[in-house]
Amino acid sequence: MLVLMRPDASAQDIGRVAEKIRSFGYEPHVLPGSQRTAIGVTGNAGPIEEFHFISLPGVSDAVRVSKPYKLVSREAKPDDTVIDCGEVVPGVRAAVGGGQFAVMAGPCAVESRAQLFAVADLVRASGATFLRGGAFKPRTSPYAFQGLKEEGLELLAEARERTGLKIITEAKDTETLDVVARYSDVVQIGARNMQNFSLLEACGRLRQPVMLKRGLSATIQEWLLSAEYILARGNYQVMLCERGIRTFETMTRNTLDLGAVTILRGVTHLPVIVDPSHGIGIWQGVAPLARASAALGCDGLMIEVHPNPAEALSDGPQSLRPDRFARLMDEVRAIRGLMDSGVPADRPA
Amino acid sequence: MLVLMRPDASAQDIGRVAEKIRSFGYEPHVLPGSQRTAIGVTGNAGPIEEFHFISLPGVSDAVRVSKPYKLVSREAKPDDTVIDCGEVVPGVRAAVGGGQFAVMAGPCAVESRAQLFAVADLVRASGATFLRGGAFKPRTSPYAFQGLKEEGLELLAEARERTGLKIITEAKDTETLDVVARYSDVVQIGARNMQNFSLLEACGRLRQPVMLKRGLSATIQEWLLSAEYILARGNYQVMLCERGIRTFETMTRNTLDLGAVTILRGVTHLPVIVDPSHGIGIWQGVAPLARASAALGCDGLMIEVHPNPAEALSDGPQSLRPDRFARLMDEVRAIRGLMDSGVPADRPA
Amino acid sequence: MLVLMRPDASAQDIGRVAEKIRSFGYEPHVLPGSQRTAIGVTGNAGPIEEFHFISLPGVSDAVRVSKPYKLVSREAKPDDTVIDCGEVVPGVRAAVGGGQFAVMAGPCAVESRAQLFAVADLVRASGATFLRGGAFKPRTSPYAFQGLKEEGLELLAEARERTGLKIITEAKDTETLDVVARYSDVVQIGARNMQNFSLLEACGRLRQPVMLKRGLSATIQEWLLSAEYILARGNYQVMLCERGIRTFETMTRNTLDLGAVTILRGVTHLPVIVDPSHGIGIWQGVAPLARASAALGCDGLMIEVHPNPAEALSDGPQSLRPDRFARLMDEVRAIRGLMDSGVPADRPA
Amino acid sequence: MLVLMRPDASAQDIGRVAEKIRSFGYEPHVLPGSQRTAIGVTGNAGPIEEFHFISLPGVSDAVRVSKPYKLVSREAKPDDTVIDCGEVVPGVRAAVGGGQFAVMAGPCAVESRAQLFAVADLVRASGATFLRGGAFKPRTSPYAFQGLKEEGLELLAEARERTGLKIITEAKDTETLDVVARYSDVVQIGARNMQNFSLLEACGRLRQPVMLKRGLSATIQEWLLSAEYILARGNYQVMLCERGIRTFETMTRNTLDLGAVTILRGVTHLPVIVDPSHGIGIWQGVAPLARASAALGCDGLMIEVHPNPAEALSDGPQSLRPDRFARLMDEVRAIRGLMDSGVPADRPA
Repeated sequence: MLVLMRPDASAQDIGRVAEKIRSFGYEPHVLPGSQRTAIGVTGNAGPIEEFHFISLPGVSDAVRVSKPYKLVSREAKPDDTVIDCGEVVPGVRAAVGGGQFAVMAGPCAVESRAQLFAVADLVRASGATFLRGGAFKPRTSPYAFQGLKEEGLELLAEARERTGLKIITEAKDTETLDVVARYSDVVQIGARNMQNFSLLEACGRLRQPVMLKRGLSATIQEWLLSAEYILARGNYQVMLCERGIRTFETMTRNTLDLGAVTILRGVTHLPVIVDPSHGIGIWQGVAPLARASAALGCDGLMIEVHPNPAEALSDGPQSLRPDRFARLMDEVRAIRGLMDSGVPADRPA
Repeated sequence: MLVLMRPDASAQDIGRVAEKIRSFGYEPHVLPGSQRTAIGVTGNAGPIEEFHFISLPGVSDAVRVSKPYKLVSREAKPDDTVIDCGEVVPGVRAAVGGGQFAVMAGPCAVESRAQLFAVADLVRASGATFLRGGAFKPRTSPYAFQGLKEEGLELLAEARERTGLKIITEAKDTETLDVVARYSDVVQIGARNMQNFSLLEACGRLRQPVMLKRGLSATIQEWLLSAEYILARGNYQVMLCERGIRTFETMTRNTLDLGAVTILRGVTHLPVIVDPSHGIGIWQGVAPLARASAALGCDGLMIEVHPNPAEALSDGPQSLRPDRFARLMDEVRAIRGLMDSGVPADRPA
Repeated sequence: MLVLMRPDASAQDIGRVAEKIRSFGYEPHVLPGSQRTAIGVTGNAGPIEEFHFISLPGVSDAVRVSKPYKLVSREAKPDDTVIDCGEVVPGVRAAVGGGQFAVMAGPCAVESRAQLFAVADLVRASGATFLRGGAFKPRTSPYAFQGLKEEGLELLAEARERTGLKIITEAKDTETLDVVARYSDVVQIGARNMQNFSLLEACGRLRQPVMLKRGLSATIQEWLLSAEYILARGNYQVMLCERGIRTFETMTRNTLDLGAVTILRGVTHLPVIVDPSHGIGIWQGVAPLARASAALGCDGLMIEVHPNPAEALSDGPQSLRPDRFARLMDEVRAIRGLMDSGVPADRPA
Repeated sequence: MLVLMRPDASAQDIGRVAEKIRSFGYEPHVLPGSQRTAIGVTGNAGPIEEFHFISLPGVSDAVRVSKPYKLVSREAKPDDTVIDCGEVVPGVRAAVGGGQFAVMAGPCAVESRAQLFAVADLVRASGATFLRGGAFKPRTSPYAFQGLKEEGLELLAEARERTGLKIITEAKDTETLDVVARYSDVVQIGARNMQNFSLLEACGRLRQPVMLKRGLSATIQEWLLSAEYILARGNYQVMLCERGIRTFETMTRNTLDLGAVTILRGVTHLPVIVDPSHGIGIWQGVAPLARASAALGCDGLMIEVHPNPAEALSDGPQSLRPDRFARLMDEVRAIRGLMDSGVPADRPA
């Protein structure tokens, strides 16, 4: 259920509704918007009677949500969620959503201080605002390189000091979630953990942005329900990342589903990032798909960049050289400029 | 096998090689390029000895083609194939490939003169150069509307007279291929016929452009081999059309595979068109995906437009209203302008 | 619409209803059953009023069919369709459906008289009642072996003379459908032609059994609608063949969907054959999947057998050696015996 | 690397090789077989020189393993792994693998003592040897019933006391793995956790059998690598469970991939269980697919049974009524009897 407040409802009105919700043993979720605040209710086993709420001061309506996902839906919150991780350098913020666009770039895995700093300097120079890099790497084979672990996190934090770039890196289990959260600005949950519900619940208890990648063969609805796990625990700073789905095609690593991105823009208020590097798995295809994503109207890009792709410990074939990344950034800026000057990012209903 | 001619080879040299190929009972395919002409050889059961050709005048080399598809590959012809269907109005040509971009628009099915002419006038006014519209409609159910058949073709030809738009329409079997070819400028082969090899062979005997849509779950390689069927019979005027593949996702009609489009730009010289209408199946997603395709660097777009989508006999939910199509054309032109002024359509190797 | 006749309705009653249906310009389809005859109506653009029929002599009811497929559904005909191609040797009939089980075996392609006769003798000795073998071969590549064509058909007919085995072979286009039908007992429509609607319509005009293979990524409903194309034209002798669908798995050629087979047993009266050879693509898996199919309760099996798989012109890796096929036949007979003696083939609702 | 011991190698010889392996900082895995013992080596970053081992007493050879999965492969251990959870009642053991077959049956979720005991008594009476039932339920939606948690485990343990049935139940995270392991005989890892590598590593430290379900769109190779995670940590008691994969088909919940089961029988020594309940999602299809799986040659079945499916809190539509389960058990026993008396479970190479 959603309790919709009147535009002129006071903080006290909102607090009174939240209190009433708690009095039934349920959880209130205050979702402010540009027009009005809505208060989502979770924790109820069955339907709730509207009459408990509609007569309270400041309440305009109480409505049942028709979709299985609730807090993530545009029904609950018509305005785009904006996730702002703060200033990179004066005048440049690392923010996504509501018209703000961010590029997250860096190596697949943090391999060494030299590698990481080289990439960080170059992607910052090209205009990225987030540095990506895996420290805890989930790998299909138990015998593959699993990342530098906490040492990798320390290097990421050093790179942030050096460049101002905000840090996004993956947490692969609840055991290491806290340490990942401590060092990073955004916690990434990978595709293989999209339905690791215990990890999602733990993310819901963080007060820090989370980026949730789509599972290898997750439907859009399952993905939204996984995001709902995080919001339902009280963390509303969630962004989604399309990284390709598994199909029968073998000439590409995955099939990037930009149709899903445009659907998401309609049904959820959460920002949507696109990762073309995993989406195709071949560096030659990364720039075309990144341009396509920008023109589609996504909220940001995540791109793998490596100073020497041929020597990368993982994902070399899909990593861009820094010079190619710089050129891609020019292209993306031009397309975004076009969009901002009147080529709008449609929002499908 | 490919016989590569020297840049300065004469027409006589080329003719001599073709004659030599025929003398073995094989078929020569002359593939001119900006740097040099190549002559593809088909019809051989096993490998051919290079020495038969390398000593002939004007020959620079004879090489075996490593891929299962040959005539469609960039190995055989490094330059983009250009398909030019002639002038729409003075100064405007209906052409695709080699940097020329075309938009094909119109209703899913030709329903009536009034419907078709209304759409034709509007899409022409917005800048389309091809009019699409099904006269022979392959339908999943035997009980669904199967098109106006030859009457529909006549209406398309009338619309061409009226607007100058070139006509693209589907041929669904060998029985009606000739009549479809007679009335149209480009023959479309639909997704469900992508591996109707007898129909492909019949298309190979046409001397008219053919647009081959990707099968519902065709791999890129299978798709190229189906195009190869057409070229191997001597018709080199083939363009490909990505229209989405079948996946597990149910919120979209198909999953548009733009990754495949960028792969194709690398491995084949044939133009690649994108059909976002079938690619997502929901009109709200058509414009975002069309913009994305233009920014990716495809050679053209096919878009369903209907004067009154709610009353369309087929594909209403994915058809754009003419005003929305007009706005999309402005967006696509802006993106294309950007691309032409230095934001290049990369070609993956 | 279905007009349901009373159990005691006379041939004259049935004829009168059919005549009435024709008087509206529609097509009647008489579907006899063990309890009662139903008469399907096709050719109507919209719904038909029941009152036209319910007062006619011998009519018990007139009902609208809820599913998009009509004539193929168990609603239209609760009893299993039996397709009986006649005697192989005295006392042995080549029949499928309604508890009768048939094994169709032979090479992927007819390669030579010696090859075909060797296989035919051996599969007959092991108990097969149909000989399979491709004469017209649809191939992904235009450069692959396309079959012996009419010469292959002649060899198949000779093998029938020799062994009594009934012949099933593929028709790949309308041009060669008649010649294929003339030489064969059952016409096979291959997976890539499952939605070649013109070919299906031509099959509807045959008065000979047709086996319709499932398309590479056809849904069960699309497959039934393709069968409906054949029945709607008046040919009710149709069997379906599950041969695996396309998925992401690469260690098998296709993914055999036995779940679909059990669903089909519930929703359609048409016999369902399983082709484990294409279903897995590796000979070692053929016998286990064939046993599984028999225990599931399918109506027959189609198996590729080759005297020397290593030298087969096509599908060698999935072809069984004759000795392994003989052993598999013993296993299948044992499982079928068990089923017949009380382990029933459930029919899901 | 695998160090292969001679048939007559002594325990001392084996210990010496293990010690040598440890001396390099690697991990030895002793894999006994009927013909000889092999010792797998893991923990090495690069290849290991064979000469370190081949001259040691009792060693016959040292070979590199060609596949990415090592300890789970038949190369490492040609004999079937047998997992024996002990006696259910005198003379009846709950064991799978090496010709021993087990049926695991029970409700999707433990709902109450009455429900669980009713099912447990009935499935035991029908011949099941394991009781399944979820206490910790991973659910797609955060608002769905998540199981009785530890209370559910206590009820399962009570049911074991009452019936002798061994307990298999799911662990959904590392936090609750120990408590699940304490109450159960086999720990189940669900499809959505197949690539939860931290959970797999934790399972590797258990000394208790683990059943690893296939991920929704996991390839056979990825699945084996996930099992390898468990073996590489020293727990060799792992069985696999095929429960259907995600495809485009919508009339079934999943597509049961029996082809994968027969491939697995060839490439791994681990037992393979089939779960037809999740594999089709419709109770009418469960018995046919269960019979098919038994005839294919799998090592066991997992079946959802509920005393009153219409009132089940989860998975009601795919749960069998106890009477139908009893009949299915008769069918499976008959098919297994046939297999044991000479209709063999082939093992593909």
